[in-house]
Amino acid sequence: VATRLPSPGATGGMPRHHARATRESGRRTRSALLDAAARLFTAHGLGGVSLAGIAAAADAFPSQVTYYFGSKEALFVEAASREMLHAAARVEEAGRRAGTPTAYVRAMTGQALADSALLLFADALLLCRHRPDLRPLVARTVERLHREGARALSERCAGSAWVLAAAPEVVARAFWAVLLGLVLETAGSGAPLDPTAVEAAVLGALGTRPHPPARRT
Amino acid sequence: VATRLPSPGATGGMPRHHARATRESGRRTRSALLDAAARLFTAHGLGGVSLAGIAAAADAFPSQVTYYFGSKEALFVEAASREMLHAAARVEEAGRRAGTPTAYVRAMTGQALADSALLLFADALLLCRHRPDLRPLVARTVERLHREGARALSERCAGSAWVLAAAPEVVARAFWAVLLGLVLETAGSGAPLDPTAVEAAVLGALGTRPHPPARRT
Repeated sequence: VATRLPSPGATGGMPRHHARATRESGRRTRSALLDAAARLFTAHGLGGVSLAGIAAAADAFPSQVTYYFGSKEALFVEAASREMLHAAARVEEAGRRAGTPTAYVRAMTGQALADSALLLFADALLLCRHRPDLRPLVARTVERLHREGARALSERCAGSAWVLAAAPEVVARAFWAVLLGLVLETAGSGAPLDPTAVEAAVLGALGTRPHPPARRT
Repeated sequence: VATRLPSPGATGGMPRHHARATRESGRRTRSALLDAAARLFTAHGLGGVSLAGIAAAADAFPSQVTYYFGSKEALFVEAASREMLHAAARVEEAGRRAGTPTAYVRAMTGQALADSALLLFADALLLCRHRPDLRPLVARTVERLHREGARALSERCAGSAWVLAAAPEVVARAFWAVLLGLVLETAGSGAPLDPTAVEAAVLGALGTRPHPPARRT
């Protein structure tokens, strides 16, 4: 027999308006904790941040972190996943107005490399290797990243009559893998990124080739 | 005024044959420590291994770890860098007998993804982000990885008359970035790698296109 545990949204026998107010307040606290966690983890890493510090920055109690997320590590993975998906939306937006495949890749690459979310997410991926209990969330994030990337790429290519060398799912996977790898190499080595080489690498992975210009203007 | 510290190779006024024996023994100890460190760090991670444990596994004293490497973190980065360069040599070897660009990428990708060195090196890269003192070694490793990759790729393409879509340096950088990113995503999410998608992604990054077959057999 499965035991039903009260979820954060459960309100027992409270009147309906009270229940709604409680749910709203819970959602705000949860969101504030994720914001504070992303900010602090980005600045100081997993080891440099305490539950109490995150709670204080979000104007909450340490017990609320445990209540909403279970552990500091789970909060880390959830915050990093959320930041990564927000970063992906900004990357898609950055490519929206580009007129050529090269400009498209340049705009998206520049946006992605400037975003601290990629390194935070790389950290969360490495953490989950030793924490199988936290993998489902990170697996869902990776899956959504690829699905959304494929959707964005399909739309963009259809709108501009660009031809991809491989299926959009494959290209989206290659795009994020290249960027995660590059961010990791750069963060570790401290070497400045050569934007030309990065763009060429991503453009290669993307598999699009610019159309020959119709005329030189 | 700079102070000269005795280096592991310094032998003071010892007779020449004695000095050579000491250097040899030092080299062997150093190598045994790196082997033990790579094995233990791969199995248990940086936090799960002690200096004393590494020394015991290499039949050495903990003080020798400090003497040769300075700290556990420095040993971690040096061991991971050495493993990564060995893995790269095996990857190059795996591609040596492939007859087509697709087979070449398939052989190298399969070899790279089966090698635990990539994840170990990803871990070393993330560690160096917070340890600028350890960056020079990891930066040299990344630089050498790209240089050796470009050399191998140039030789292989020249030998088979394959045409690259970009400079070998760019293609080599994209190759390792894609693989580091994929290994990270897979290790974190626990999702099984789809070899077809991986090969297509790496083939795209490689920028080679198979020659159209001369005839169907």
